Amino acid sequence: MDMETVNSMDFGEFVEVFGNVVERCPLVAAAVWSQRPFSDPADLERQFFAFIDALPQSGKEGVLRCHPDLAGRELQRGTLTAESQREQSGAGLTSLGAAERLRLTELNAQYRARFGFPFVLAARLSDRAAVPRELARRLLCPPELELRTALEEVKKIGHLRLADLLGADPAKL
Amino acid sequence: MDMETVNSMDFGEFVEVFGNVVERCPLVAAAVWSQRPFSDPADLERQFFAFIDALPQSGKEGVLRCHPDLAGRELQRGTLTAESQREQSGAGLTSLGAAERLRLTELNAQYRARFGFPFVLAARLSDRAAVPRELARRLLCPPELELRTALEEVKKIGHLRLADLLGADPAKL
Repeated sequence: MDMETVNSMDFGEFVEVFGNVVERCPLVAAAVWSQRPFSDPADLERQFFAFIDALPQSGKEGVLRCHPDLAGRELQRGTLTAESQREQSGAGLTSLGAAERLRLTELNAQYRARFGFPFVLAARLSDRAAVPRELARRLLCPPELELRTALEEVKKIGHLRLADLLGADPAKL
Repeated sequence: MDMETVNSMDFGEFVEVFGNVVERCPLVAAAVWSQRPFSDPADLERQFFAFIDALPQSGKEGVLRCHPDLAGRELQRGTLTAESQREQSGAGLTSLGAAERLRLTELNAQYRARFGFPFVLAARLSDRAAVPRELARRLLCPPELELRTALEEVKKIGHLRLADLLGADPAKL
């Protein structure tokens, strides 16, 4: 998809296409449409990230709270978004053994209780062995640092999703 | 539902219950959870409205863009949220004649083209005769005024939805 196509979309089309670049936050794409025309894919991405960065702390936490747990209840129930399902599946999180799943459930619950938002990680850049290790490590971080780390993961996820939608190489976006 | 119940919800429960107080913007409820405990229903509502008011203009426009047209394509397709379906149905917008529907489709398209967001109106406080009249009137307003008017409608909708969820009298919330 070239930028001319993107820039010619009305807001309904734009939100339909880019509404889940930030998981379950179509509001972000709907706001970003105000900044068109976009000069190139990097500019489009910058507008998504700038909107998140400009949110008050509650809004940043809100963005995180719209994300599902990794290998959590929504995966079990089949209620993940298509993107999240694909990402978690690609990382091997849909085929965990009972012990691995239990371990992640416990760590996710501890993380949510400690920080007030779910553990967010770009699953496509990780795998089933690394996820619980990274979760256990981040569980020990100070809350302000962890908020920043988690938002960086939101951006990594958004970067890969945008590259997919634009048919671009993520390394060159 | 009393405030003790609301204040005891974890963020997952809170977003499940209040996620559509602002149409298709669960991010707002997810952010509002950061402000708990809420002293009373009016305080809870104030937090929703304060979050919207603090958004940059693009974010306010984004909130509006997450709303469906009245008597529009989503109503035809059956893809409205449950709340919106109920509200549009209550106003008689699900049983329009072909000419009335066509007239609204045209006005909606003009409005979207002029302002860059859809026509938002608290349908429960209106009816099928008043909707096209009000749309035609607001179509002539200056854009800055219209943005404010539309956001006031978002708040009226949110007020009524919150009252429903809390089992409260909207006049006393």
